[in-house]
Amino acid sequence: MKLLRDLLVQFGVSGDEGLTTKFILQYIYKQKKNWSFQPEIFAGDEFHDCILLKFGSPTTAVFAHIDTIGFMSRYENQLVAVGGPEIQEGTLLEGQDSLGQISCRILGDEDNLRHDFGRAIERGTRLAFAQDIRIDDEFIQAAYLDNRLGVYSALKVCENLEHGWVVFSTYEEHGGGSMPYLLSFIQQKHPIKNALISDITWVTDGVFPNEGVVISIRDKFIPRKKFIDKVVGLAKESGIPFQLEVEAYGGSDGREVQFSPYAIDWVFVGAAEENVHTPNEKVALSDLDSMIQMHQYLMKHL
Amino acid sequence: MKLLRDLLVQFGVSGDEGLTTKFILQYIYKQKKNWSFQPEIFAGDEFHDCILLKFGSPTTAVFAHIDTIGFMSRYENQLVAVGGPEIQEGTLLEGQDSLGQISCRILGDEDNLRHDFGRAIERGTRLAFAQDIRIDDEFIQAAYLDNRLGVYSALKVCENLEHGWVVFSTYEEHGGGSMPYLLSFIQQKHPIKNALISDITWVTDGVFPNEGVVISIRDKFIPRKKFIDKVVGLAKESGIPFQLEVEAYGGSDGREVQFSPYAIDWVFVGAAEENVHTPNEKVALSDLDSMIQMHQYLMKHL
Amino acid sequence: MKLLRDLLVQFGVSGDEGLTTKFILQYIYKQKKNWSFQPEIFAGDEFHDCILLKFGSPTTAVFAHIDTIGFMSRYENQLVAVGGPEIQEGTLLEGQDSLGQISCRILGDEDNLRHDFGRAIERGTRLAFAQDIRIDDEFIQAAYLDNRLGVYSALKVCENLEHGWVVFSTYEEHGGGSMPYLLSFIQQKHPIKNALISDITWVTDGVFPNEGVVISIRDKFIPRKKFIDKVVGLAKESGIPFQLEVEAYGGSDGREVQFSPYAIDWVFVGAAEENVHTPNEKVALSDLDSMIQMHQYLMKHL
Repeated sequence: MKLLRDLLVQFGVSGDEGLTTKFILQYIYKQKKNWSFQPEIFAGDEFHDCILLKFGSPTTAVFAHIDTIGFMSRYENQLVAVGGPEIQEGTLLEGQDSLGQISCRILGDEDNLRHDFGRAIERGTRLAFAQDIRIDDEFIQAAYLDNRLGVYSALKVCENLEHGWVVFSTYEEHGGGSMPYLLSFIQQKHPIKNALISDITWVTDGVFPNEGVVISIRDKFIPRKKFIDKVVGLAKESGIPFQLEVEAYGGSDGREVQFSPYAIDWVFVGAAEENVHTPNEKVALSDLDSMIQMHQYLMKHL
Repeated sequence: MKLLRDLLVQFGVSGDEGLTTKFILQYIYKQKKNWSFQPEIFAGDEFHDCILLKFGSPTTAVFAHIDTIGFMSRYENQLVAVGGPEIQEGTLLEGQDSLGQISCRILGDEDNLRHDFGRAIERGTRLAFAQDIRIDDEFIQAAYLDNRLGVYSALKVCENLEHGWVVFSTYEEHGGGSMPYLLSFIQQKHPIKNALISDITWVTDGVFPNEGVVISIRDKFIPRKKFIDKVVGLAKESGIPFQLEVEAYGGSDGREVQFSPYAIDWVFVGAAEENVHTPNEKVALSDLDSMIQMHQYLMKHL
Repeated sequence: MKLLRDLLVQFGVSGDEGLTTKFILQYIYKQKKNWSFQPEIFAGDEFHDCILLKFGSPTTAVFAHIDTIGFMSRYENQLVAVGGPEIQEGTLLEGQDSLGQISCRILGDEDNLRHDFGRAIERGTRLAFAQDIRIDDEFIQAAYLDNRLGVYSALKVCENLEHGWVVFSTYEEHGGGSMPYLLSFIQQKHPIKNALISDITWVTDGVFPNEGVVISIRDKFIPRKKFIDKVVGLAKESGIPFQLEVEAYGGSDGREVQFSPYAIDWVFVGAAEENVHTPNEKVALSDLDSMIQMHQYLMKHL
């Protein structure tokens, strides 16, 4: 779990994913000699802070977003949310501006969001939840399991992937914007028919911890039934524990596949968490395990 | 009206349009020998559940969405809406899961939407309004006139169309997503400058039954004035009854033309209905007639 | 300021920008002989009512929207908003339908918006705020400073621009829709890496008149930090007065750059106004001056 612990402490609030990108790229360059198959790697300024790995001759891609929710300093001691973090007074935030390191607490609520730092923070400085990783035999608890677990799972998939794109996207937590050019590049380079979203969803009244990875039949948006049926058929064959989700709300990088100018089917496959978008996101380790296995299985059999 | 009656009983809740697609394709293959001109037909997995017909050398396309609103089973006896159906307790719904046919009634309201079926329905199963077609001398009343009338009109346009695309889209009722790849395909194959939306709108305080097809100056989105002026000019020349709509809300496949990466003008041309998104949608037969005639006229003269 | 005064009296409510387009094109054709470098000009039906100027070998484009907010007549004496105008009973509106010139006043409020004109206005007729230009030593006050100042600034940038696209877009006030095809054309013709939005923002509790042009770190959407850092670095070097904005709401043509299928960085650079979206928009002349200078500087140094 060293990789996961390392991922969880990288800073990557939406729009400022550079450090996370750098960490993932270094990991890839160091580890790929141990992978069964060697990918082509696409990264750098032309891709902003995204990374694409092409293994063999892909028909399917897995997408994991590397950005996190967080906060941005406004005027005086005001804060503005990045993405949709839970606002709880007293929550510890960390960041950095040109004057140095920042550690402060949330004051107020959604309508009057402030910090208690002892000096003004430079305008537009990003702050993230202070990280506190807790792992026991059954659960992992930390900030930003959403979506560092999805990134972790995608990197585990790389270890023995023969054919497929593995793609690390940005901006997902704040409306998106990297998926359109990633999809355009993929469809020009080596087009796909299927997309798997490697991300984290919610424990609800129908989705429970320790009952397997979630395959989502819908969130706010709806993948095509023919494709969901195929995915669920494969999931049953695989023997890997999974549960089916049906939600009216929420979204993922799948939304941008749905509205792309390509006829690409998509499905969300990821573990469910409690305490969503707080510093105390909690996921069952067995569900993380099922998530990795299911992605490996689907990338092989779709 | 056999074609229309047949269309009205096809199942096609957004994301599960396969049966409707199959019916339309079979109709096209059987009937096209009677059409004045023979189209190229584009359908199949590459187009998901959409169909495109290219007649001659098009500059204009007509788009008719084949999906319908409906419901999806969630957990226990919960339902989630697909698109924006009217929720009225007691409304009869029908569908099918792996255990067999389903017929049940709506319980509750928007905030607590359930069904009364005697057993659990498999997660993600789609349910549609039970169909009850009523036709008299003046009106047709049924579920899903929106947009089976639009599909019907587009198929009638095919009978003597020399130049033009006729396109059957999916997902319109639930945010869209097929239009971007349909437009991309069209612009690569044989590009267009104009798009007609063949869909159903609302009877309001300015739009009345039996007063002609509606040409919409705007809904939530606004077509370009130069193009609307041209369309209205042609409509006046045609002698076909029409009325002009100005709404602040609502949308259609035209929205996705507006936001596409192509400079394509668009306009909504369709009959108005009462009892929108209920099992009792009601349209004047004379307005359906004007709709078909106006689409034929505009496809010829634009 | 003759150019600015002329721009302020052109009619251009979203979707009906033709007269404004014609005025700008005539200005360009008349004035370009005085410009240091000669652009390629792209305009005409293929671009709807937009205009693109390509100077030299661009890596950056500046975008200025030419449309304005306004109103549209509905049924009886009802009005519907185009974009988000402030509704104040008694505000004077002007327009034209086939029966002649129209001058009337707003009645009612957002929920019941009407006019007091003595006859019915044809459905779909656009009305704009009556123009009243007030200039003193320190401020300009008028309707539609947003975005006639942005257009003015972009035209001033043309005077000595060696390399760069200068682009006049439409529909920005009502959800957009021209940016996707403009960006597609640019990326095919001579692609860019950076986009500057030449538009007007708000005086707030952190942004003040006479304190320089605003560089926006975010509005509802968030440009990439690496790019903002670069822009702010250049702005500091330039010596031109500027201030940094951090907002949770609002948008611009930058939104459509963010969601485009191209990895293009973007930033909003524009003066701040009071009395937003009223006939009394007010901007400090020194801020307009900083805006023009900053756009010139960034187009040269990015």
